[in-house]
Amino acid sequence: MLKVGLLGAGRIAGVHATAISSHPGSQLVAVSDFIPENADKLARQYGCEARSTDDIIADESINAVLVATSTDTHSDLIESATAAGKAVLCEKPVDLSLERAQTCLELASQTGKPVMVGFNRRFDPNFSALKMALDAGEIGKSELLSITSFDPAPPPISYIKVSGGLFRDMMIHDFDMANYLMGAAPESVSAFGSSIVEPEIGEAGDIDTAVVTLTYSDGRIAVIKNSRRAVYGYDQRVELLGSKGLLQAQNMLENTVVKSTTMGVTSAKPTYFFLERYMPSYANEWAAFVEAISSGGPVPVTLEDGVQALAMAEAAVQSLAQGHPVKLCKVLV
Amino acid sequence: MLKVGLLGAGRIAGVHATAISSHPGSQLVAVSDFIPENADKLARQYGCEARSTDDIIADESINAVLVATSTDTHSDLIESATAAGKAVLCEKPVDLSLERAQTCLELASQTGKPVMVGFNRRFDPNFSALKMALDAGEIGKSELLSITSFDPAPPPISYIKVSGGLFRDMMIHDFDMANYLMGAAPESVSAFGSSIVEPEIGEAGDIDTAVVTLTYSDGRIAVIKNSRRAVYGYDQRVELLGSKGLLQAQNMLENTVVKSTTMGVTSAKPTYFFLERYMPSYANEWAAFVEAISSGGPVPVTLEDGVQALAMAEAAVQSLAQGHPVKLCKVLV
Amino acid sequence: MLKVGLLGAGRIAGVHATAISSHPGSQLVAVSDFIPENADKLARQYGCEARSTDDIIADESINAVLVATSTDTHSDLIESATAAGKAVLCEKPVDLSLERAQTCLELASQTGKPVMVGFNRRFDPNFSALKMALDAGEIGKSELLSITSFDPAPPPISYIKVSGGLFRDMMIHDFDMANYLMGAAPESVSAFGSSIVEPEIGEAGDIDTAVVTLTYSDGRIAVIKNSRRAVYGYDQRVELLGSKGLLQAQNMLENTVVKSTTMGVTSAKPTYFFLERYMPSYANEWAAFVEAISSGGPVPVTLEDGVQALAMAEAAVQSLAQGHPVKLCKVLV
Amino acid sequence: MLKVGLLGAGRIAGVHATAISSHPGSQLVAVSDFIPENADKLARQYGCEARSTDDIIADESINAVLVATSTDTHSDLIESATAAGKAVLCEKPVDLSLERAQTCLELASQTGKPVMVGFNRRFDPNFSALKMALDAGEIGKSELLSITSFDPAPPPISYIKVSGGLFRDMMIHDFDMANYLMGAAPESVSAFGSSIVEPEIGEAGDIDTAVVTLTYSDGRIAVIKNSRRAVYGYDQRVELLGSKGLLQAQNMLENTVVKSTTMGVTSAKPTYFFLERYMPSYANEWAAFVEAISSGGPVPVTLEDGVQALAMAEAAVQSLAQGHPVKLCKVLV
Repeated sequence: MLKVGLLGAGRIAGVHATAISSHPGSQLVAVSDFIPENADKLARQYGCEARSTDDIIADESINAVLVATSTDTHSDLIESATAAGKAVLCEKPVDLSLERAQTCLELASQTGKPVMVGFNRRFDPNFSALKMALDAGEIGKSELLSITSFDPAPPPISYIKVSGGLFRDMMIHDFDMANYLMGAAPESVSAFGSSIVEPEIGEAGDIDTAVVTLTYSDGRIAVIKNSRRAVYGYDQRVELLGSKGLLQAQNMLENTVVKSTTMGVTSAKPTYFFLERYMPSYANEWAAFVEAISSGGPVPVTLEDGVQALAMAEAAVQSLAQGHPVKLCKVLV
Repeated sequence: MLKVGLLGAGRIAGVHATAISSHPGSQLVAVSDFIPENADKLARQYGCEARSTDDIIADESINAVLVATSTDTHSDLIESATAAGKAVLCEKPVDLSLERAQTCLELASQTGKPVMVGFNRRFDPNFSALKMALDAGEIGKSELLSITSFDPAPPPISYIKVSGGLFRDMMIHDFDMANYLMGAAPESVSAFGSSIVEPEIGEAGDIDTAVVTLTYSDGRIAVIKNSRRAVYGYDQRVELLGSKGLLQAQNMLENTVVKSTTMGVTSAKPTYFFLERYMPSYANEWAAFVEAISSGGPVPVTLEDGVQALAMAEAAVQSLAQGHPVKLCKVLV
Repeated sequence: MLKVGLLGAGRIAGVHATAISSHPGSQLVAVSDFIPENADKLARQYGCEARSTDDIIADESINAVLVATSTDTHSDLIESATAAGKAVLCEKPVDLSLERAQTCLELASQTGKPVMVGFNRRFDPNFSALKMALDAGEIGKSELLSITSFDPAPPPISYIKVSGGLFRDMMIHDFDMANYLMGAAPESVSAFGSSIVEPEIGEAGDIDTAVVTLTYSDGRIAVIKNSRRAVYGYDQRVELLGSKGLLQAQNMLENTVVKSTTMGVTSAKPTYFFLERYMPSYANEWAAFVEAISSGGPVPVTLEDGVQALAMAEAAVQSLAQGHPVKLCKVLV
Repeated sequence: MLKVGLLGAGRIAGVHATAISSHPGSQLVAVSDFIPENADKLARQYGCEARSTDDIIADESINAVLVATSTDTHSDLIESATAAGKAVLCEKPVDLSLERAQTCLELASQTGKPVMVGFNRRFDPNFSALKMALDAGEIGKSELLSITSFDPAPPPISYIKVSGGLFRDMMIHDFDMANYLMGAAPESVSAFGSSIVEPEIGEAGDIDTAVVTLTYSDGRIAVIKNSRRAVYGYDQRVELLGSKGLLQAQNMLENTVVKSTTMGVTSAKPTYFFLERYMPSYANEWAAFVEAISSGGPVPVTLEDGVQALAMAEAAVQSLAQGHPVKLCKVLV
């Protein structure tokens, strides 16, 4: 039975608390938060203790921590928790600074403790079914990947300003998805973007619409499309052309009702946002973490994976600024 | 080269004229109509002669006639054309009177000339693909058939009054589809119906909404649903459950555009009515007729098929009136 | 906070235990089972007590019981629990005997305690979205209802023998769905059926393939199709034609992956069986029960509803045996 | 009545001959071909004369010519036909040389005769329905366009060598589609490509897989994906994200049959190649040409449009060679 401390008690921490509690192989023993009242509240709901982060990390009876705090604390907490001998599952991104993330990777690696990064979409039933079909050779060799990833509505400008920008905050999921499906890092990253959805986002120095093309040393190509606004809901699709066919993971809809009238044939919209769409993926992610820790096997998404995705975001930032492709090796010192 | 006379110059005759003209193995040589002006007009458009029906039937250089006149003339024309040594493709239904149709079958059979009945839906690319998959064993043995067949809007009451009623006019297509797919005649016919769409249809002694259940001697069951009104377009679907799976032929849509907005995900409507939906089936039907006549093989839809479907309509009429199932053998004397 | 006793500790009881535990307004306090070990096991997992059924019913601190025992005990337990002042949520069917169910309804009604019958499909997100669209007038007045309900594989013959037969065991869900969507009881029931899937089912006196047509006093018609075997999974669809359009609730698929190869375009199968398909409906059903009990409002599925569906099953049994339609009023004395 | 000369008698000329013949406002009077036997054969089939190209152009009774000859003759024929006072519909591309095409545009413009370029996809019922919805404001302002355009199988290497390369031969259709839907020329063109499908294509100096990103001065972005091989058929899709929704034009399938078995739910493949998919678009294109010439209105696809698409192909060629984005204004001198 894995005894787990949860660092952070915000919205996504609640999702993780449910996954930890309902898994037969793990037990939520403590939770901490920057705002103690939040920790208290979550502790009451899930029947565990509210403690300080330091306390949890120092507690030798706790085997693993789940880091669901704000991004700027991730690297520090990964380092201290692994130094204290704990397995770690940390929410993405590892850090907004590639350099800092690389240091964290180095230090955490020295402890030998497993660190998994929370790219939960790898555990979405649709994307993982696509990956399984790919690995089973059902479309032969992969050639051309497309990822569509649109949010339903832009976040507040206040969030945009501290987010690290679209590439580090939003597209980082898609960079990891590309790595997951292509099974290799790209050679070059070419970014195109603009703030066409909301001018204020542009004024804040960010973009809201972006296309990034990744090229691979073996000639494969990937394209990622992001928009901060798809009014019809959270649009999360992947398609991969291979030598023997095409695989697509389509959107999940709110329900299966179809209405035919003089206006046309209407289905439900895609599930609204990540909590609706990816709820099953959080449970699957936690199960994969517990399985890896329990069996002593490798975690399915490593800290290296987290650094890799961050490096791609960094390359995209540079490509957009410079107006030409950027080699990934140039940003990974 | 099959030399063809077209009897009738109405709307459906125009569709047939195009099929005859554009087929490399047939030539439209003459057309007749009750209203000579209609025949003249069609003759000009397709570069053939407008003549009288008697003339066409008497013309020994004409090999085949296509009967697209009003229903009450079908039996007479089949008899006279076959007696004159011509192959015949006759629009459905053979007759509104089962007894008259049976006499026609007897007389036409004695001539030994091929008579094909225009159940064009057998030649619809979707239904024929379903039939091919069934015959290839893709769903094992058939067990339960459902036919959905809704018109977009009811015809005028004046038409209803001379139509022979929903079972003989509209569902007769579905009776033939059931025979085509089940490969056997049913044992019993049970009809349920009402005039819920338009009370005037009820006042005219007909129904506009109907469900007919067919049972087969080997335990199979078929259900046919008809409505005179589906405001979203012509709804023409078939589904067949078998021991190893399900086959469905779905509607054809006007186009493939899908629009996603805050109101939902909207596709185009089904193609509006039979001319839009079944246009390809008329060309395929004609090609099958030409192929059968040219090769001397059997026609793919026989006059017996036409009588069989009419007998099922007759049984449905009796079942609805009597409120219980009617054995098909009871109406076929 | 509703204090709940769970009667029965089998597979479906486990589903209910999860719903009760995770609902913020209810607490699972005790569980009983015919086999005490089963109750013990479930009690340990959900942190409640294993007690005897009598004990639970006698415990005044328990406000509600959920009856998930074998069908032959339902009526007795509804009577004793309501007599003891408890609200009841009872799994379907109320009983296999219509007469016994009617007595139960009479006795339970005298206590004035709310009894809800577990027709969970009313709470399926797809069917309830269809119902909401219907009630909102989106397709005008309903005219023609079709329910397709196929199990993935037949149950063991041993189960068939005690099940009460297809109409009481399987189609009873669809009878209730018809009542839910049509908002009225039918006038007549006409049943057609055979044992074409598995001859042994026929030898056991039951059928495995059935079509039932329901007619309504206002001219509406409903058709229910059942098969004990759809090898591609649990096929659960509803479609309703109205004066202004068509509503369909389609199957839920295992995932959204689509594969295009030289063999065609392939999607995932429907979710396998009722536990996969209807898992959300059990939670929604429980939430509706808690809401009704807490607010003192009427339960959304009454004991009368349970008796009504059973009466339709009884009528179907008689119709199949007699070979003609049976008026519903004839079986409801 | 438009009297039409058809230049070229190859496969696509046959498609045009059907469109010209069956249109009530045009008459096919003569056909020419480099190989006289081909012209003879087509002339016999469509009941017109086989003549020399010079003869046709010199014939004052001929109002319009349709140029369906090899690409290297297009510019010369447009110039001579317009100089002879004829309206011209010319197959795409105008030329493989942008400079030559620009000269042709200049000369043809001086004659004042209408020249339409055969970008038939603008007349596909699906893409034109998408365009109509866009123009009607159904998704607000356009922001992000994606075009997927995959051929079923690569052409022979011999064809590749004379084709002008993927951008001028294949993607030129998509460049025009982008111009059609975005209503503006892009500012920059960024091309990525490789010969991953067939190494021989790379050896011939071409690519078989490509992604091109177009940026627009107002911040909009378009992405075009091409592959010479999609084994499941001709994959021709467009999707456009706007401020109020998403429009997608999906593939047309061979038929509407869906098969559900233990292997999944399988639909038909997309129609195989351009003749199957775009057959209706050729008829619509011709009708639009006849309408423009008859009414004296502007042709819906101008020679400028043809030069614009060619300039984009030229920019893509340069971008791929240079490894960075190319401004469209740099290639248009």
